Amino acid sequence: LIDEKRLLGALDELAGIGAIDGGGCARLALTDEDKAGRDLLVGWMKAAGLDVRIDAIGNVIGVRAGSENLAPVMTGSHIDTVRTGGRYDGNYGVLAGLEVVRALNDAKRTTRRPIAVAFFTNEEGARFQPDMMGSLVYAGGLGLNEAYAATDKDGVAVGDELRRIGYLGAAKPGALKPHAFVELHIEQGPILDEEKVQIGVVESVQGISWTEYTVTGVSNHAGTTPMRLRRDAGYLAASVNVFVRGLAHEMGGNQVGTVGALSLRPNLINVVPNRAVFTVDLRNTDEAKLKEAEARVAAHIAEVAAAERVEVEAKVLARFEPVIFEAGLVDRVERHAGALSLTTQRMPSGAGHDAQMMQRICPTAMIFVPSVAGLSHNVKEHTEAADLLAGAQVLANLMLELASE
Amino acid sequence: LIDEKRLLGALDELAGIGAIDGGGCARLALTDEDKAGRDLLVGWMKAAGLDVRIDAIGNVIGVRAGSENLAPVMTGSHIDTVRTGGRYDGNYGVLAGLEVVRALNDAKRTTRRPIAVAFFTNEEGARFQPDMMGSLVYAGGLGLNEAYAATDKDGVAVGDELRRIGYLGAAKPGALKPHAFVELHIEQGPILDEEKVQIGVVESVQGISWTEYTVTGVSNHAGTTPMRLRRDAGYLAASVNVFVRGLAHEMGGNQVGTVGALSLRPNLINVVPNRAVFTVDLRNTDEAKLKEAEARVAAHIAEVAAAERVEVEAKVLARFEPVIFEAGLVDRVERHAGALSLTTQRMPSGAGHDAQMMQRICPTAMIFVPSVAGLSHNVKEHTEAADLLAGAQVLANLMLELASE
Ligand SMILES: NC(=O)NCCC(=O)O
Ligand SMILES: NC(=O)NCCC(=O)O
Repeated sequence: LIDEKRLLGALDELAGIGAIDGGGCARLALTDEDKAGRDLLVGWMKAAGLDVRIDAIGNVIGVRAGSENLAPVMTGSHIDTVRTGGRYDGNYGVLAGLEVVRALNDAKRTTRRPIAVAFFTNEEGARFQPDMMGSLVYAGGLGLNEAYAATDKDGVAVGDELRRIGYLGAAKPGALKPHAFVELHIEQGPILDEEKVQIGVVESVQGISWTEYTVTGVSNHAGTTPMRLRRDAGYLAASVNVFVRGLAHEMGGNQVGTVGALSLRPNLINVVPNRAVFTVDLRNTDEAKLKEAEARVAAHIAEVAAAERVEVEAKVLARFEPVIFEAGLVDRVERHAGALSLTTQRMPSGAGHDAQMMQRICPTAMIFVPSVAGLSHNVKEHTEAADLLAGAQVLANLMLELASE
Repeated sequence: LIDEKRLLGALDELAGIGAIDGGGCARLALTDEDKAGRDLLVGWMKAAGLDVRIDAIGNVIGVRAGSENLAPVMTGSHIDTVRTGGRYDGNYGVLAGLEVVRALNDAKRTTRRPIAVAFFTNEEGARFQPDMMGSLVYAGGLGLNEAYAATDKDGVAVGDELRRIGYLGAAKPGALKPHAFVELHIEQGPILDEEKVQIGVVESVQGISWTEYTVTGVSNHAGTTPMRLRRDAGYLAASVNVFVRGLAHEMGGNQVGTVGALSLRPNLINVVPNRAVFTVDLRNTDEAKLKEAEARVAAHIAEVAAAERVEVEAKVLARFEPVIFEAGLVDRVERHAGALSLTTQRMPSGAGHDAQMMQRICPTAMIFVPSVAGLSHNVKEHTEAADLLAGAQVLANLMLELASE
């Protein structure tokens, strides 16, 4: 069914919007580049005969009518990227969904249930927090006004940006309740690539804990201030980074921890920093373990803050418990991959995905394809064409089955 | 001799240029604010009858003729500040020198030797490295072309900025070789304030080692990348900060170490940083110990870089060995303070100063006054008026003695 060339061509064309050195993309949510990407997708959806609905958080859903007016089978993902992102993360799932529609059109096939292809607003969370914002609102987990009020680091709000780029739509988020939701995505991690497996059967998504810390110390002269008198905001930030690394190693399993963002003030070579703002990203498939990691980071911060005599303010930017996908639907992913003679492996997802929010309102599952060398959120993110094709074929067959029931 | 009100008034007026919240100053070297401060000082010098000479690195020297055409007795410091600096650092020494001249004018006193008041370009090193740039060029330790080529973080060069603000003068740096140089400065550290001593008799300046490190790792997804596969540039930077703290504690004595500046790329919550640029400032009064500290930091970086599989480039931004001031002149500082019934303490300087460069070409000494709570490079930097007056009196008496011989 799937036209490999057309799928790759669409990926190429979308990757041209916000293209950056090294083959990657910078299409942060609700920027001009995101708008250009959205416009391209909406054009394609309309050209494919889809009924396009834009909701009040900017989610875009294109619906292909079924022979009966039933709940649709939905697929989709996101087209926003991080600042130095790849071309597959999110985009692949959306364009594979579009390819399924285009292929059905070519084959002049009508399904019993409608088929819907969606892309959700601000999945990455790189510009606005929380991540998975559009799907979270869609699933009823976040109110519109709260979402509108989220601001980027320059104080620009989601609501204003949605209006500015023309994607504050009229539809009520969640109005269309799917029969099932299936998201196809690159793994973004190394497991399938290392094990040479073609399809990842995603059983769950690990819990995500994002906190931003603002540390206030006292700026002072780097040459004259004895170590015992320092109240160094940057030192606390550094000690947390090192602590998080040690904690992840000690806890083992799939516990990961990252300090990805940090800025110092005044940020000068000979001045003890009086302010540090930094983030901690903690994840675990096990909620109890994730809570343990959070508690231990908090205890470390309290201890160092007291010794260093600095003030620390913590702000939770996102907190999602681990999510288990619908067991029956997960089995079907495995079955369809097997029917195509593809090798499979059951696995949790390390990244957050829109699917984890959709699981709140309908049976949901995910299909992973390998990421070369496990690279993602990197301009060199890559998946082989054969794997892109295989994933889209599994998606198509599963959607057709779901749409016939 | 000294007019306290006039001295405090001049400090107030200069502090009005580049004033920032909290009572501090932002007059980074060769900015518009620095130009405005320079213009104010040059006006005051001319009004006080000084012969003002601007040299090719932007040092400004005002000379008051003596009864004989001998080498002058010189005092001075700098008027540039860090980004969130105080109002006394540097400025106090320059304005106290001007006050000595004004007081001699009022008293219609002529000295045997000429008296010179100088302010040197870019002492702070906050915008351009190395620090003490103007006095270093003056003393022959750095060539003009090398100094002109130094750039700030936006790539703007010293030579271009000197021309732009009109302070690329005609005089040859170092043309005027002083009989002696005495710099009056706030301590910028806690010792005099803690010990309730009025005058610090500065015997030496500790060695300064500034290095900027650029770390290249691999950006990757914070949720999907197992700890063992990370090549996290930010982690290396953090580990150096923590290591430097531990090293300073372990080495003890007056070893200090600071990571004051750090920036990450892409600097996003859910992306492992692929680039970190950070600085390390190490200081010790003992050159052998400073070398040991440098070697141990380098060894730590090599070890972590290998384990993390990141590349590290090191760039030395400044490196000055400890400096011992002229013993005879140091004794005289102590004697003059004693004659005014001021309490004294001999001490090294923790900060770098223009005087340490002048010691290369003439007998040099420094006078310190207390900094309340040891705060400096901080908008709350403060010295009590009585201490400001006392320091200026010691300076005046010492200069008069030197100018009469
Ligand atoms: N898939 C993906 O990269 N989502 C962004 C949110 C996260 O950091 O997991
Ligand atoms: N006095 C002073 O703050 N100098 C700046 C250079 C240094 O960091 O020591």
